[in-house]
Amino acid sequence: MACSYLREGMTGSATFSLFARAMPPQRGFLVAAGIEPALGLLGDYRIGPEELTVIAGLLHRPESDLRALLGMRFEGDVWAVPEGSVVLAGEPLVEVTAPLPQAQLVETLLLNQVSHQTAVASKAARCVLAARGRPVVDFSLRRTHGLSAGEQAARLGAMTGFAATSHMGAAAAYGVPATGTMAHSYVEAFRSEEEAFRAFARAWPGAVTFLVDTYDTEAGVAAAARVLLELREAEGQQARQQCAVRLDSGDLADLSVRARRILDAAGLPDVRIVASGGLDEYAIDALLGAGAPIDVFAVGTKVGVCADAPSLDTAYKLVAYEGRPVMKLSSAKMTAPGAKQVYRRPGYADVIALRDEPCPADGGVPLLRPMMLGGRRTGPDSVQEALSAAHMRFTADLVALPEEAKRIHDPVAPVATDSAALTKLTHDVEQHIREERAAAPHA
Amino acid sequence: MACSYLREGMTGSATFSLFARAMPPQRGFLVAAGIEPALGLLGDYRIGPEELTVIAGLLHRPESDLRALLGMRFEGDVWAVPEGSVVLAGEPLVEVTAPLPQAQLVETLLLNQVSHQTAVASKAARCVLAARGRPVVDFSLRRTHGLSAGEQAARLGAMTGFAATSHMGAAAAYGVPATGTMAHSYVEAFRSEEEAFRAFARAWPGAVTFLVDTYDTEAGVAAAARVLLELREAEGQQARQQCAVRLDSGDLADLSVRARRILDAAGLPDVRIVASGGLDEYAIDALLGAGAPIDVFAVGTKVGVCADAPSLDTAYKLVAYEGRPVMKLSSAKMTAPGAKQVYRRPGYADVIALRDEPCPADGGVPLLRPMMLGGRRTGPDSVQEALSAAHMRFTADLVALPEEAKRIHDPVAPVATDSAALTKLTHDVEQHIREERAAAPHA
Repeated sequence: MACSYLREGMTGSATFSLFARAMPPQRGFLVAAGIEPALGLLGDYRIGPEELTVIAGLLHRPESDLRALLGMRFEGDVWAVPEGSVVLAGEPLVEVTAPLPQAQLVETLLLNQVSHQTAVASKAARCVLAARGRPVVDFSLRRTHGLSAGEQAARLGAMTGFAATSHMGAAAAYGVPATGTMAHSYVEAFRSEEEAFRAFARAWPGAVTFLVDTYDTEAGVAAAARVLLELREAEGQQARQQCAVRLDSGDLADLSVRARRILDAAGLPDVRIVASGGLDEYAIDALLGAGAPIDVFAVGTKVGVCADAPSLDTAYKLVAYEGRPVMKLSSAKMTAPGAKQVYRRPGYADVIALRDEPCPADGGVPLLRPMMLGGRRTGPDSVQEALSAAHMRFTADLVALPEEAKRIHDPVAPVATDSAALTKLTHDVEQHIREERAAAPHA
Repeated sequence: MACSYLREGMTGSATFSLFARAMPPQRGFLVAAGIEPALGLLGDYRIGPEELTVIAGLLHRPESDLRALLGMRFEGDVWAVPEGSVVLAGEPLVEVTAPLPQAQLVETLLLNQVSHQTAVASKAARCVLAARGRPVVDFSLRRTHGLSAGEQAARLGAMTGFAATSHMGAAAAYGVPATGTMAHSYVEAFRSEEEAFRAFARAWPGAVTFLVDTYDTEAGVAAAARVLLELREAEGQQARQQCAVRLDSGDLADLSVRARRILDAAGLPDVRIVASGGLDEYAIDALLGAGAPIDVFAVGTKVGVCADAPSLDTAYKLVAYEGRPVMKLSSAKMTAPGAKQVYRRPGYADVIALRDEPCPADGGVPLLRPMMLGGRRTGPDSVQEALSAAHMRFTADLVALPEEAKRIHDPVAPVATDSAALTKLTHDVEQHIREERAAAPHA
């Protein structure tokens, strides 16, 4: 496509709009994410001599036919909603304006980053809601779709309020607290659970979390209690604060009650209970609804792969070329033409407007901002700064979101409406295309 | 955990076994995958001075406490089933034997690679089956969970028999044919579909595929037919072989019949019909079951994210330490002890045996092979060679698989059985653990 555009001299300015076509089932809102990583990749985009040789080889074409691609990089503008923003179906998350071949070439990169990261962030946010103020931590790396997805899951958890991650690399890269864990294999490598717990405490002078379900959970909790009491006896009653036991299997509602009883009876009311093992927002909600005395939720697989909605139905659509608004008519996938802006209004009564329209008369805050101009980032200096800003934005946006959108089961998502000007333009462009096609069917 | 092992002098040889606990719903077999990439990462594994500083910082510990980790790399043995092998639930896919701290440290890496790649390869294989000999191509990069997942999806598609991928980077890296595509935006950037098709053909002298559903599908097919006839008129009747139209929306069964009729009526019976848009094995099966004259299936999102089973329930379990077989007893997650071998027997009547057991008296082919010895690969010299070998293995294994396991709906998976020796060892170890725990409850 890019070669063809270049050959035809079609290097005029094009605007593409990236948005989610529909809210996935059981979602009342989306958390915009993946934009910062995507912009980083856009900034690095280059077609150099080596890439050209590879492309020519793959396409079985002489390099001379593709020479026009050489040196291509992304020199366009990107308007986008800041990461961490709570957004709705149909709202543009990213709009790219660049010479047509460039804007087309970055399509896959942008969709790849924004689609799955928005999906995962939106699910992570629901886990935080379900936990009702209790800490949620990320244990997903072992099952994410590759290492980069694991790094992103850790980052997206932090964006939406997770307390920590077990992914050490991501913790270091993004300035997120790291949390350790103990495997069943660790316990099994010792002659008994108590030996394992004592050894762990010898290696780790601070707060320890003992995994108690390797053999028999109640016996494991009792063993953990005995070791914790020994440690306080030896090290002083103020030692070993913030310790915990972790339950990773079985009926967590029942076992957490039993564990709490054993710990309290041992005089360890401060020892917390961590639950893990296939948890997601539905399981957390059910456990707390049943009164389970769980203090910390470790979520992994189901959030890291966004198990109940593993893809987000996103599109990257041409909406204007050389000043001419453009749209697609085909069945059920019609797209609205023109560069856009979204105005956030109280209660998430959002209005999708044309970019150059004034703010609605009764108010609204524009969501899309210039993030890249002429191929250069406008935005923050470090990935940690960006993550921190995204977390603050998410927190603020969540406060304003209607309660019914935050429900775990059957949430009701606010619906954005098109401005009068956008509605009129959509109608006019559709009419114009149909007239042109009728007048010149075989143009 | 690794620090604790080192502190306690627990550097004896440990064996861990990686396997899928259960067959996902609607799967009759699994295709082992992710092993080659995992072995590559294992070979590169190092804890250097920089990593040590990062870890110490994250754990809020002085570096001196962690010095024992410095210089750690993977020096163990790995036995595994070769990639592309058709495998069953419970069968070890990878077994690691290494000093305990090393074997523990690589857990997450191995699970991360093998779990999702096996899931995606298994789904890709089902698409190939559903297509009944018609080519299937990979279009998944835009929705996979990150760029590396996209690269793997292209590779796993090729492993299970896909004809091509739209991921140019993966095509180049793995020696897979690249396939181009045309976006709706390309068509929209021109004044009409015919202008777009003509321009595409000018840039591309060979086989072209025209996307025909931007406005009205039947009109789009007719436009494609006119342009193809023009091209043959201008370039000769032998020009433009293997051209196609692509349908990406609407009722593909109905539209493909209409498209075929239009193309045949235009004297273009050789022009193929490519279908795309949310396809997976179920959709392909339904389309062909309805007699849709579709020649090529492009699958993307649903296969790339393994939409109906986005995670595989894998485990990496300690099965032996210092020659002592080890197992976990906790609820519903009991694991069998000891290093293992799997014997493939006719009809997939597989036997899971102890590694040092002889082959069953009535025959069987051992599936696990040494892939890494003392931290060094035994295996193939190039990633392309490895992929080609995996594809051949998959093809051979598939031929021998019972038909009921290959069904798209409600397949019946063969079930592996444990050898008598493994059953006895499992029983003995369980008994031994229970006796030890009973004799010394507070050991």
